[in-house]
Amino acid sequence: MKIGILGGGQLARMIIEECYKYGFEFHVLSKDPDSPAGQVTKYETAGEWDDENCLRKFSEGCDIITLENEFIDPQKIRSLEDRGKKVFPGSKVIGLIQDKLYQKKTLEKINIPVAKFCEVNDQKDILNFAKQHGYPVVLKSRTMGYDGKGNYLINSEKDVETAFESLSSRGELMCESFVNFDKEIATQVTRSISGEIKVYPVVETIQKDHICNFVIASKDQFEKIKLKAEEIAKKVVTELDYAGTLGIEMFLTGSDILVNELAPRVHNSGHYTIEGCYTSQFENHIRAIMNFPLGSTQLRENNSVMINIIGERNGLSKLQNAGELLSKEKVYLHVYGKKETRFGRKMGHITVLGDDLSKTIALAKECREAIRI
Amino acid sequence: MKIGILGGGQLARMIIEECYKYGFEFHVLSKDPDSPAGQVTKYETAGEWDDENCLRKFSEGCDIITLENEFIDPQKIRSLEDRGKKVFPGSKVIGLIQDKLYQKKTLEKINIPVAKFCEVNDQKDILNFAKQHGYPVVLKSRTMGYDGKGNYLINSEKDVETAFESLSSRGELMCESFVNFDKEIATQVTRSISGEIKVYPVVETIQKDHICNFVIASKDQFEKIKLKAEEIAKKVVTELDYAGTLGIEMFLTGSDILVNELAPRVHNSGHYTIEGCYTSQFENHIRAIMNFPLGSTQLRENNSVMINIIGERNGLSKLQNAGELLSKEKVYLHVYGKKETRFGRKMGHITVLGDDLSKTIALAKECREAIRI
Repeated sequence: MKIGILGGGQLARMIIEECYKYGFEFHVLSKDPDSPAGQVTKYETAGEWDDENCLRKFSEGCDIITLENEFIDPQKIRSLEDRGKKVFPGSKVIGLIQDKLYQKKTLEKINIPVAKFCEVNDQKDILNFAKQHGYPVVLKSRTMGYDGKGNYLINSEKDVETAFESLSSRGELMCESFVNFDKEIATQVTRSISGEIKVYPVVETIQKDHICNFVIASKDQFEKIKLKAEEIAKKVVTELDYAGTLGIEMFLTGSDILVNELAPRVHNSGHYTIEGCYTSQFENHIRAIMNFPLGSTQLRENNSVMINIIGERNGLSKLQNAGELLSKEKVYLHVYGKKETRFGRKMGHITVLGDDLSKTIALAKECREAIRI
Repeated sequence: MKIGILGGGQLARMIIEECYKYGFEFHVLSKDPDSPAGQVTKYETAGEWDDENCLRKFSEGCDIITLENEFIDPQKIRSLEDRGKKVFPGSKVIGLIQDKLYQKKTLEKINIPVAKFCEVNDQKDILNFAKQHGYPVVLKSRTMGYDGKGNYLINSEKDVETAFESLSSRGELMCESFVNFDKEIATQVTRSISGEIKVYPVVETIQKDHICNFVIASKDQFEKIKLKAEEIAKKVVTELDYAGTLGIEMFLTGSDILVNELAPRVHNSGHYTIEGCYTSQFENHIRAIMNFPLGSTQLRENNSVMINIIGERNGLSKLQNAGELLSKEKVYLHVYGKKETRFGRKMGHITVLGDDLSKTIALAKECREAIRI
């Protein structure tokens, strides 16, 4: 069984790491050779996934194909499907999610709570939207945005022109009400081809410079909204007829949940599931698309805390002080194999399990401080 | 950091699967291409590890080298060391362990309890040994024996000639008293380059057709001999100045322990540690030779049971009914990627965790019955 993955980053790498135990082989299509995922498999094709020839050639050796990012032209995926290739998640769902305007419209149509939003063709659309719903508003690129790239916070009328001009070169735009949330939360949900669904715990996510940086999963948190979040997650994957793991970013205000964004893939907010849950999001993703039964998504211990290791300089990467971390119990280090470190680049992550939440958080931060890469 | 592994079987495969998270690369030297371990890495050299040219070429690209089996000429390892290569475990310890007679002599010298034994040059040696210590005795090939191959049980004088003739073609021989044990037990012990030692729980091992087939790790078992086994394990790795994970097979009679065999590598009796312990024997092996601190070897749950999936036919392998297993909680499947199944070939294993030992054992057996490969 050879599973193809479009994309060769850390998400693909962790899918592979988690699923070799089933005897599967993996073929990675990455932009650059020796990608994080390409380093851990025999089969890596370096090429553009928007190049139809490359994609077709890649797909020929794969029994089934999945993806680790949503920035792939759904038409290209469609052409694979038209040639009989199994791709999960498929072109239809990627098409709906990739464009944030379509995504919001889809969510609204199935009665999932989202912030107010509108399509933006010119500056007047922003001004009208703000007049109706008030400032601040967030101007967003409809496609290709990630880690805060493609977002612009507009606090008043005088920001509108600058915002519009700075983002319009990135393609089509949309506008949303700014949500004054109490917390950002997230979950991952996996749905198999045959429709079995497992939802992961609701976690708190803390961003730093718009990058998901810190994730807290605790048995004791979000008791009141757990069920509501689970219902949302189940509804989304069912209505979309989704197969695989999907990340759901949400805003929590009081006990109100608004869905902020869907990611049709495994998600940074679920890295902790490798050690924190009985079955990781990565493994369940592959189980889902293989139509295997899904594994338990329950927490193994009371608390799991995940902190990203983000690059703090530019240059060749060099792991230092790993030993300091590994001498501590229930501390887990993941290094993505990126040869070069860069400011803001995700180089790895640390997960810490523990009984006492504040101690677990403190230990995770201490470990992050210790490591150099 | 590129780690070389001499051997490309399932032991190497599981080392790799468990340690990609540290960003390491692995280079495998296997007899045949597309070996179980070769399937999960970019770097596989197919060749004979006793071919010095091949070994030298292989070693050139590796920062550090380890091995997954002990059937490598220690002289060949020595020649790598002489050229400045770091090999763990090293030629000296492989030399001592590989030859079962030297192994037993070494153990005796450091006061580790072993069965009576003697060197065998001709049939008279066997007859004299039996006269002194009584039948039955076990005639053994001093080298290259595994899974019962190279052993012959001699019940009386009339078996001596057949036994000698059937084994003497395999090389030098030794003879041991047959131990009428209550249970076969085992442990794994990891020692790092700097001398840190962690011992895994004592497990019961049940052989089928001389192949380790069933392993039971339980918090409630072997209370009385736990400390004794731990002392033996620590003494062995300290006296041998060992680096890496070492498997120790033992006989238990009453509360007496005899060491049966050392394996200078990760061991089948420790496969359960992947899910059963906080840190697997595979990961600790690599931590040890990288001189990282070792991880906790404690059991995560009360009971872990491991059952091997041994081939029951000859032909192309085809995994069937995996879904039936994966629908059960705390059941873990490992498939080694061997393209061909054969009678008696280790194709994979199943680990089951649980609170109640007899239910855990029953579930493991049920799962083994269900799977076809």
